[in-house]
Amino acid sequence: MPLQERARATKASIVEGAAAVFEEIGYGNASLSSVAERAGVTKGALYFHFKSKEDLALAVIEAQHALATQEGERIAGLGRSALSTIILTCASFGRLLVQEPVVRAGVRLTLEASAFGHSVTAPYEDWIRTMEFLTRQGQSEGEIDEALDTAAFARYLVASFTGVQMVSGVLTHRADVLERIEDMWSILLPAMVPETKLAEFLDLARLGVHEADPAEGRSGHSV
Amino acid sequence: MPLQERARATKASIVEGAAAVFEEIGYGNASLSSVAERAGVTKGALYFHFKSKEDLALAVIEAQHALATQEGERIAGLGRSALSTIILTCASFGRLLVQEPVVRAGVRLTLEASAFGHSVTAPYEDWIRTMEFLTRQGQSEGEIDEALDTAAFARYLVASFTGVQMVSGVLTHRADVLERIEDMWSILLPAMVPETKLAEFLDLARLGVHEADPAEGRSGHSV
Repeated sequence: MPLQERARATKASIVEGAAAVFEEIGYGNASLSSVAERAGVTKGALYFHFKSKEDLALAVIEAQHALATQEGERIAGLGRSALSTIILTCASFGRLLVQEPVVRAGVRLTLEASAFGHSVTAPYEDWIRTMEFLTRQGQSEGEIDEALDTAAFARYLVASFTGVQMVSGVLTHRADVLERIEDMWSILLPAMVPETKLAEFLDLARLGVHEADPAEGRSGHSV
Repeated sequence: MPLQERARATKASIVEGAAAVFEEIGYGNASLSSVAERAGVTKGALYFHFKSKEDLALAVIEAQHALATQEGERIAGLGRSALSTIILTCASFGRLLVQEPVVRAGVRLTLEASAFGHSVTAPYEDWIRTMEFLTRQGQSEGEIDEALDTAAFARYLVASFTGVQMVSGVLTHRADVLERIEDMWSILLPAMVPETKLAEFLDLARLGVHEADPAEGRSGHSV
Protein backbone atom coordinates (compact mmCIF):
# COMPACT_ATOMS: atom_id res chain seq x y z
CA MET A 1 0.00 0.00 0.00
CA PRO A 2 1.45 3.45 -0.85
CA LEU A 3 2.44 5.41 2.26
CA GLN A 4 -0.23 8.09 1.91
CA GLU A 5 -2.95 5.53 1.45
CA ARG A 6 -1.74 3.62 4.47
CA ALA A 7 -1.85 6.79 6.58
CA ARG A 8 -5.41 7.39 5.43
CA ALA A 9 -6.37 3.82 6.34
CA THR A 10 -4.76 4.21 9.76
CA LYS A 11 -6.64 7.44 10.35
CA ALA A 12 -9.91 5.79 9.36
CA SER A 13 -9.27 2.89 11.76
CA ILE A 14 -8.58 5.35 14.55
CA VAL A 15 -11.83 7.22 13.92
CA GLU A 16 -13.71 3.90 13.90
CA GLY A 17 -11.98 2.83 17.12
CA ALA A 18 -12.76 6.18 18.71
CA ALA A 19 -16.41 5.89 17.66
CA ALA A 20 -16.65 2.46 19.30
CA VAL A 21 -15.07 3.70 22.54
CA PHE A 22 -17.06 6.96 22.71
CA GLU A 23 -20.31 5.15 21.99
CA GLU A 24 -19.70 2.64 24.75
CA ILE A 25 -18.39 4.77 27.57
CA GLY A 26 -18.91 8.41 26.58
CA TYR A 27 -16.46 11.26 26.20
CA GLY A 28 -15.46 11.72 29.81
CA ASN A 29 -14.49 8.10 30.39
CA ALA A 30 -12.66 7.58 27.11
CA SER A 31 -8.87 7.71 26.94
CA LEU A 32 -6.45 7.94 24.03
CA SER A 33 -4.91 4.61 25.07
CA SER A 34 -8.26 2.82 24.96
CA VAL A 35 -8.85 4.25 21.47
CA ALA A 36 -5.38 3.17 20.27
CA GLU A 37 -5.99 -0.31 21.64
CA ARG A 38 -9.46 -0.58 20.06
CA ALA A 39 -8.14 0.68 16.72
CA GLY A 40 -5.19 -1.71 16.83
CA VAL A 41 -2.64 1.08 16.35
CA THR A 42 0.24 2.28 18.52
CA LYS A 43 -0.19 5.37 20.66
CA GLY A 44 2.52 6.95 18.48
CA ALA A 45 0.45 6.41 15.35
CA LEU A 46 -2.59 7.84 17.10
CA TYR A 47 -0.72 10.97 18.24
CA PHE A 48 0.55 11.44 14.70
CA HIS A 49 -3.05 11.98 13.54
CA PHE A 50 -4.81 13.35 16.63
CA LYS A 51 -3.31 15.55 19.33
CA SER A 52 -6.07 15.19 21.91
CA LYS A 53 -9.26 13.41 22.88
CA GLU A 54 -11.09 16.55 21.78
CA ASP A 55 -9.60 16.26 18.28
CA LEU A 56 -10.77 12.66 18.15
CA ALA A 57 -14.28 13.56 19.26
CA LEU A 58 -14.52 16.30 16.66
CA ALA A 59 -13.33 13.87 13.95
CA VAL A 60 -16.08 11.43 14.94
CA ILE A 61 -18.73 14.18 14.89
CA GLU A 62 -17.42 15.28 11.49
CA ALA A 63 -17.56 11.72 10.11
CA GLN A 64 -21.13 11.38 11.38
CA HIS A 65 -22.09 14.69 9.84
CA ALA A 66 -20.51 13.66 6.51
CA LEU A 67 -22.48 10.40 6.44
CA ALA A 68 -25.76 12.08 7.36
CA THR A 69 -25.28 14.88 4.84
CA GLN A 70 -24.40 12.39 2.10
CA GLU A 71 -27.58 10.43 2.82
CA GLY A 72 -29.60 13.66 2.95
CA GLU A 73 -28.26 14.67 -0.45
CA ARG A 74 -28.90 11.23 -1.91
CA ILE A 75 -32.54 11.39 -0.84
CA ALA A 76 -32.99 14.98 -2.01
CA GLY A 77 -31.61 13.75 -5.35
CA LEU A 78 -34.41 11.18 -5.73
CA GLY A 79 -36.69 14.01 -6.86
CA ARG A 80 -39.57 12.98 -4.59
CA SER A 81 -42.12 15.41 -3.16
CA ALA A 82 -41.09 17.45 -0.09
CA LEU A 83 -43.10 15.39 2.40
CA SER A 84 -41.77 12.14 0.90
CA THR A 85 -38.26 13.56 1.25
CA ILE A 86 -38.87 14.38 4.92
CA ILE A 87 -40.17 10.86 5.62
CA LEU A 88 -37.39 9.10 3.71
CA THR A 89 -34.72 11.26 5.35
CA CYS A 90 -35.90 10.30 8.84
CA ALA A 91 -36.03 6.61 7.86
CA SER A 92 -32.61 6.78 6.36
CA PHE A 93 -31.10 8.47 9.40
CA GLY A 94 -32.69 5.75 11.53
CA ARG A 95 -30.97 3.10 9.43
CA LEU A 96 -27.64 4.92 9.70
CA LEU A 97 -28.03 4.80 13.49
CA VAL A 98 -28.55 1.04 13.34
CA GLN A 99 -25.72 0.35 10.92
CA GLU A 100 -22.99 2.91 11.60
CA PRO A 101 -21.21 3.06 14.96
CA VAL A 102 -19.78 6.44 13.95
CA VAL A 103 -23.30 7.86 13.72
CA ARG A 104 -24.30 6.52 17.14
CA ALA A 105 -21.08 7.87 18.64
CA GLY A 106 -21.52 11.23 16.91
CA VAL A 107 -25.04 11.58 18.32
CA ARG A 108 -23.81 10.81 21.82
CA LEU A 109 -20.84 13.18 21.52
CA THR A 110 -22.99 16.01 20.19
CA LEU A 111 -25.11 15.80 23.33
CA GLU A 112 -22.08 15.49 25.59
CA ALA A 113 -20.06 18.16 23.84
CA SER A 114 -20.74 20.83 26.45
CA ALA A 115 -18.30 18.71 28.50
CA PHE A 116 -15.52 19.68 26.16
CA GLY A 117 -16.60 23.24 25.62
CA HIS A 118 -17.88 23.10 22.05
CA SER A 119 -20.97 24.70 20.71
CA VAL A 120 -23.02 21.95 19.11
CA THR A 121 -26.06 23.87 18.05
CA ALA A 122 -25.14 23.90 14.34
CA PRO A 123 -26.20 20.33 13.42
CA TYR A 124 -29.59 20.78 15.10
CA GLU A 125 -30.09 24.22 13.57
CA ASP A 126 -29.15 22.90 10.12
CA TRP A 127 -31.66 20.06 10.32
CA ILE A 128 -34.39 22.35 11.64
CA ARG A 129 -33.82 24.79 8.78
CA THR A 130 -33.87 21.98 6.19
CA MET A 131 -37.07 20.51 7.64
CA GLU A 132 -38.74 23.91 7.76
CA PHE A 133 -37.87 24.55 4.12
CA LEU A 134 -39.25 21.13 3.12
CA THR A 135 -42.40 21.62 5.22
CA ARG A 136 -43.17 24.92 3.51
CA GLN A 137 -42.54 23.27 0.15
CA GLY A 138 -44.87 20.43 1.18
CA GLN A 139 -47.58 23.00 1.86
CA SER A 140 -47.17 24.55 -1.57
CA GLU A 141 -47.30 21.05 -3.09
CA GLY A 142 -50.63 20.48 -1.31
CA GLU A 143 -49.37 17.53 0.72
CA ILE A 144 -49.09 19.32 4.09
CA ASP A 145 -51.93 21.20 5.80
CA GLU A 146 -51.60 24.95 5.19
CA ALA A 147 -52.52 25.62 8.83
CA LEU A 148 -49.43 23.85 10.18
CA ASP A 149 -46.95 26.27 11.79
CA THR A 150 -43.88 25.29 9.77
CA ALA A 151 -41.28 26.66 12.21
CA ALA A 152 -42.88 24.97 15.21
CA PHE A 153 -43.32 21.71 13.29
CA ALA A 154 -39.74 21.62 12.02
CA ARG A 155 -38.32 22.23 15.50
CA TYR A 156 -40.64 19.63 16.97
CA LEU A 157 -39.87 17.04 14.30
CA VAL A 158 -36.11 17.31 14.86
CA ALA A 159 -36.50 17.25 18.65
CA SER A 160 -38.97 14.38 18.65
CA PHE A 161 -36.84 12.34 16.23
CA THR A 162 -33.87 12.93 18.57
CA GLY A 163 -35.90 11.66 21.52
CA VAL A 164 -37.28 8.68 19.62
CA GLN A 165 -33.82 7.43 18.67
CA MET A 166 -32.30 8.17 22.09
CA VAL A 167 -35.02 6.45 24.09
CA SER A 168 -34.82 3.51 21.66
CA GLY A 169 -31.09 3.50 22.45
CA VAL A 170 -31.74 3.35 26.19
CA LEU A 171 -34.52 0.77 26.03
CA THR A 172 -33.38 -1.56 23.22
CA HIS A 173 -29.92 -0.40 22.09
CA ARG A 174 -31.78 0.91 19.03
CA ALA A 175 -33.01 -2.56 18.01
CA ASP A 176 -36.51 -1.08 17.62
CA VAL A 177 -35.60 2.37 16.30
CA LEU A 178 -37.09 1.80 12.84
CA GLU A 179 -40.44 0.68 14.28
CA ARG A 180 -40.43 3.67 16.63
CA ILE A 181 -39.87 6.03 13.69
CA GLU A 182 -42.80 4.36 11.92
CA ASP A 183 -44.92 4.93 15.08
CA MET A 184 -43.86 8.58 15.08
CA TRP A 185 -45.31 9.05 11.60
CA SER A 186 -48.47 7.12 12.41
CA ILE A 187 -49.09 9.74 15.11
CA LEU A 188 -47.88 12.85 13.25
CA LEU A 189 -49.23 12.27 9.74
CA PRO A 190 -52.99 12.26 10.51
CA ALA A 191 -52.70 15.86 11.74
CA MET A 192 -50.58 16.97 8.79
CA VAL A 193 -51.80 15.56 5.52
CA PRO A 194 -55.13 15.67 3.67
CA GLU A 195 -57.20 12.57 4.46
CA THR A 196 -57.08 11.46 0.84
CA LYS A 197 -53.30 11.16 0.98
CA LEU A 198 -52.92 9.71 4.48
CA ALA A 199 -52.73 6.03 3.46
CA GLU A 200 -50.07 6.77 0.83
CA PHE A 201 -47.77 8.52 3.31
CA LEU A 202 -48.31 5.99 6.08
CA ASP A 203 -47.24 3.35 3.53
CA LEU A 204 -44.18 5.39 2.63
CA ALA A 205 -43.23 5.69 6.32
CA ARG A 206 -43.50 1.90 6.59
CA LEU A 207 -41.60 1.21 3.38
CA GLY A 208 -39.06 3.91 4.15
CA VAL A 209 -37.86 2.31 7.35
CA HIS A 210 -37.82 -1.15 5.82
CA GLU A 211 -36.06 -0.24 2.57
CA ALA A 212 -33.44 -2.90 1.98
CA ASP A 213 -30.28 -0.94 1.32
CA PRO A 214 -29.82 2.49 2.88
CA ALA A 215 -26.30 2.73 1.52
CA GLU A 216 -27.53 2.43 -2.04
CA GLY A 217 -26.09 5.32 -3.96
CA ARG A 218 -23.45 6.11 -1.37
CA SER A 219 -19.99 5.85 -2.78
CA GLY A 220 -17.82 3.79 -0.50
CA HIS A 221 -17.10 4.29 3.14
CA SER A 222 -16.92 7.91 4.15
CA VAL A 223 -14.77 7.83 7.30
CA MET B 1 -28.25 22.08 64.93
CA PRO B 2 -28.55 18.51 66.28
CA LEU B 3 -25.92 16.17 64.87
CA GLN B 4 -28.30 14.01 62.84
CA GLU B 5 -29.93 17.03 61.27
CA ARG B 6 -26.55 18.48 60.40
CA ALA B 7 -25.56 15.21 58.72
CA ARG B 8 -28.76 15.32 56.69
CA ALA B 9 -28.09 18.92 55.67
CA THR B 10 -24.53 18.01 54.65
CA LYS B 11 -25.78 15.10 52.59
CA ALA B 12 -28.32 17.36 50.86
CA SER B 13 -25.60 19.93 50.05
CA ILE B 14 -23.45 17.16 48.60
CA VAL B 15 -26.27 15.92 46.37
CA GLU B 16 -26.90 19.51 45.21
CA GLY B 17 -23.19 20.04 44.56
CA ALA B 18 -23.02 16.75 42.68
CA ALA B 19 -26.03 17.73 40.59
CA ALA B 20 -24.36 21.02 39.63
CA VAL B 21 -21.11 19.29 38.66
CA PHE B 22 -22.75 16.38 36.76
CA GLU B 23 -25.03 18.77 34.90
CA GLU B 24 -22.13 20.93 33.81
CA ILE B 25 -19.50 18.41 32.82
CA GLY B 26 -21.17 14.99 32.78
CA TYR B 27 -20.40 11.81 34.64
CA GLY B 28 -17.08 10.92 33.06
CA ASN B 29 -15.43 14.28 33.73
CA ALA B 30 -16.74 14.73 37.28
CA SER B 31 -14.52 13.99 40.28
CA LEU B 32 -15.29 13.56 43.96
CA SER B 33 -12.98 16.51 44.74
CA SER B 34 -14.85 18.84 42.41
CA VAL B 35 -18.14 17.80 44.05
CA ALA B 36 -16.73 18.36 47.57
CA GLU B 37 -15.49 21.78 46.50
CA ARG B 38 -18.79 22.75 44.89
CA ALA B 39 -20.76 21.53 47.93
CA GLY B 40 -18.44 23.38 50.30
CA VAL B 41 -17.66 20.26 52.33
CA THR B 42 -14.41 18.44 53.07
CA LYS B 43 -13.54 15.30 51.13
CA GLY B 44 -13.79 13.46 54.47
CA ALA B 45 -17.39 14.58 54.92
CA LEU B 46 -18.16 13.53 51.36
CA TYR B 47 -16.63 10.05 51.80
CA PHE B 48 -18.64 9.64 55.00
CA HIS B 49 -21.84 9.80 52.93
CA PHE B 50 -20.79 8.52 49.50
CA LYS B 51 -18.16 5.91 48.76
CA SER B 52 -17.85 6.52 45.03
CA LYS B 53 -18.81 8.74 42.11
CA GLU B 54 -21.30 6.04 41.16
CA ASP B 55 -23.00 6.34 44.57
CA LEU B 56 -23.25 10.09 44.05
CA ALA B 57 -24.73 9.71 40.58
CA LEU B 58 -27.31 7.24 41.84
CA ALA B 59 -28.24 9.64 44.67
CA VAL B 60 -28.81 12.43 42.12
CA ILE B 61 -30.94 10.15 39.92
CA GLU B 62 -32.91 9.11 43.01
CA ALA B 63 -33.47 12.74 44.06
CA GLN B 64 -34.67 13.57 40.54
CA HIS B 65 -36.99 10.58 40.53
CA ALA B 66 -38.39 11.59 43.95
CA LEU B 67 -39.15 15.13 42.75
CA ALA B 68 -40.74 13.94 39.51
CA THR B 69 -42.84 11.30 41.29
CA GLN B 70 -43.98 13.83 43.90
CA GLU B 71 -45.09 16.21 41.15
CA GLY B 72 -46.77 13.36 39.27
CA GLU B 73 -48.71 12.41 42.39
CA ARG B 74 -49.66 16.01 43.09
CA ILE B 75 -51.14 16.36 39.61
CA ALA B 76 -52.89 12.99 39.74
CA GLY B 77 -54.41 14.24 43.02
CA LEU B 78 -56.01 17.24 41.32
CA GLY B 79 -58.76 14.94 40.09
CA ARG B 80 -58.66 16.22 36.51
CA SER B 81 -59.53 14.16 33.46
CA ALA B 82 -56.88 11.76 32.13
CA LEU B 83 -55.89 13.93 29.15
CA SER B 84 -55.68 17.02 31.38
CA THR B 85 -53.45 15.02 33.74
CA ILE B 86 -51.15 14.04 30.85
CA ILE B 87 -50.86 17.65 29.68
CA LEU B 88 -50.31 19.08 33.18
CA THR B 89 -47.73 16.39 34.01
CA CYS B 90 -45.65 17.27 30.94
CA ALA B 91 -45.88 20.98 31.75
CA SER B 92 -44.90 20.38 35.33
CA PHE B 93 -41.92 18.24 34.41
CA GLY B 94 -40.84 21.01 32.05
CA ARG B 95 -40.93 23.50 34.92
CA LEU B 96 -38.96 21.13 37.15
CA LEU B 97 -36.29 21.03 34.44
CA VAL B 98 -36.10 24.82 34.43
CA GLN B 99 -36.09 25.21 38.21
CA GLU B 100 -34.30 22.19 39.67
CA PRO B 101 -30.63 21.50 38.85
CA VAL B 102 -31.05 18.03 40.33
CA VAL B 103 -33.66 17.23 37.67
CA ARG B 104 -31.45 18.46 34.83
CA ALA B 105 -28.51 16.48 36.23
CA GLY B 106 -30.66 13.37 36.73
CA VAL B 107 -31.83 13.50 33.11
CA ARG B 108 -28.25 13.79 31.88
CA LEU B 109 -27.02 11.00 34.15
CA THR B 110 -29.84 8.67 33.14
CA LEU B 111 -28.73 8.98 29.53
CA GLU B 112 -25.06 8.62 30.41
CA ALA B 113 -25.58 5.79 32.86
CA SER B 114 -24.44 3.10 30.46
CA ALA B 115 -21.01 4.61 31.20
CA PHE B 116 -21.21 3.39 34.74
CA GLY B 117 -22.89 0.10 33.97
CA HIS B 118 -26.38 0.72 35.28
CA SER B 119 -29.60 -0.23 33.65
CA VAL B 120 -31.65 2.91 33.36
CA THR B 121 -34.68 1.62 31.55
CA ALA B 122 -36.96 1.72 34.62
CA PRO B 123 -37.75 5.48 34.68
CA TYR B 124 -38.64 5.44 30.97
CA GLU B 125 -40.67 2.26 31.31
CA ASP B 126 -42.52 3.67 34.32
CA TRP B 127 -43.46 6.86 32.48
CA ILE B 128 -44.52 4.94 29.38
CA ARG B 129 -46.75 2.67 31.46
CA THR B 130 -48.31 5.64 33.29
CA MET B 131 -48.94 7.50 30.02
CA GLU B 132 -50.45 4.40 28.40
CA PHE B 133 -52.79 3.93 31.34
CA LEU B 134 -53.87 7.59 31.19
CA THR B 135 -54.29 7.47 27.40
CA ARG B 136 -56.62 4.46 27.66
CA GLN B 137 -58.53 6.25 30.41
CA GLY B 138 -58.74 9.35 28.19
CA GLN B 139 -60.31 7.21 25.48
CA SER B 140 -62.94 5.87 27.86
CA GLU B 141 -63.61 9.46 29.00
CA GLY B 142 -64.24 10.42 25.36
CA GLU B 143 -61.40 12.96 25.25
CA ILE B 144 -58.95 10.91 23.18
CA ASP B 145 -59.72 9.39 19.77
CA GLU B 146 -60.60 5.69 20.13
CA ALA B 147 -58.50 4.91 17.04
CA LEU B 148 -55.24 6.04 18.68
CA ASP B 149 -52.86 3.14 19.36
CA THR B 150 -52.33 3.74 23.07
CA ALA B 151 -49.06 1.79 23.40
CA ALA B 152 -47.49 3.49 20.39
CA PHE B 153 -48.70 6.90 21.53
CA ALA B 154 -47.43 6.51 25.11
CA ARG B 155 -43.99 5.42 23.91
CA TYR B 156 -43.88 8.24 21.40
CA LEU B 157 -45.03 10.86 23.89
CA VAL B 158 -42.30 9.94 26.40
CA ALA B 159 -39.63 9.78 23.68
CA SER B 160 -40.69 12.99 22.02
CA PHE B 161 -40.89 14.84 25.35
CA THR B 162 -37.35 13.60 26.08
CA GLY B 163 -36.15 14.96 22.74
CA VAL B 164 -37.97 18.28 23.14
CA GLN B 165 -36.35 19.00 26.49
CA MET B 166 -32.91 17.76 25.41
CA VAL B 167 -32.79 19.75 22.17
CA SER B 168 -34.04 22.79 24.11
CA GLY B 169 -31.11 22.13 26.47
CA VAL B 170 -28.63 22.08 23.60
CA LEU B 171 -30.05 25.11 21.76
CA THR B 172 -31.12 27.42 24.61
CA HIS B 173 -30.02 25.80 27.90
CA ARG B 174 -33.73 25.05 28.33
CA ALA B 175 -34.72 28.74 28.30
CA ASP B 176 -37.44 27.89 25.76
CA VAL B 177 -38.43 24.44 27.02
CA LEU B 178 -41.92 25.50 28.15
CA GLU B 179 -42.73 27.05 24.76
CA ARG B 180 -41.41 23.94 23.01
CA ILE B 181 -43.70 21.73 25.14
CA GLU B 182 -46.60 23.99 24.16
CA ASP B 183 -45.60 23.54 20.49
CA MET B 184 -45.53 19.79 21.00
CA TRP B 185 -49.16 19.82 22.08
CA SER B 186 -50.20 22.17 19.29
CA ILE B 187 -48.93 19.50 16.89
CA LEU B 188 -50.12 16.37 18.76
CA LEU B 189 -53.55 17.43 20.02
CA PRO B 190 -55.30 18.01 16.65
CA ALA B 191 -54.75 14.32 15.79
CA MET B 192 -55.88 13.08 19.21
CA VAL B 193 -58.92 14.93 20.47
CA PRO B 194 -62.41 15.51 19.09
CA GLU B 195 -62.59 18.84 17.25
CA THR B 196 -65.12 20.19 19.75
CA LYS B 197 -62.60 19.85 22.57
CA LEU B 198 -59.46 20.95 20.75
CA ALA B 199 -59.53 24.61 21.84
CA GLU B 200 -60.01 23.65 25.49
CA PHE B 201 -56.96 21.37 25.54
CA LEU B 202 -54.77 23.74 23.55
CA ASP B 203 -55.62 26.35 26.21
CA LEU B 204 -54.74 23.93 28.96
CA ALA B 205 -51.37 23.19 27.32
CA ARG B 206 -50.71 26.94 27.24
CA LEU B 207 -51.88 27.55 30.80
CA GLY B 208 -50.14 24.42 32.04
CA VAL B 209 -46.69 25.54 31.03
CA HIS B 210 -47.27 29.06 32.33
CA GLU B 211 -48.82 28.12 35.68
CA ALA B 212 -47.16 30.30 38.29
CA ASP B 213 -45.95 27.88 40.93
CA PRO B 214 -45.11 24.31 40.02
CA ALA B 215 -44.00 23.58 43.56
CA GLU B 216 -47.43 24.44 44.93
CA GLY B 217 -48.51 21.52 47.05
CA ARG B 218 -45.02 20.09 47.35
CA SER B 219 -43.90 19.85 50.94
CA GLY B 220 -40.44 21.33 51.33
CA HIS B 221 -37.29 20.39 49.48
CA SER B 222 -37.05 16.76 48.62
CA VAL B 223 -33.30 16.22 48.39
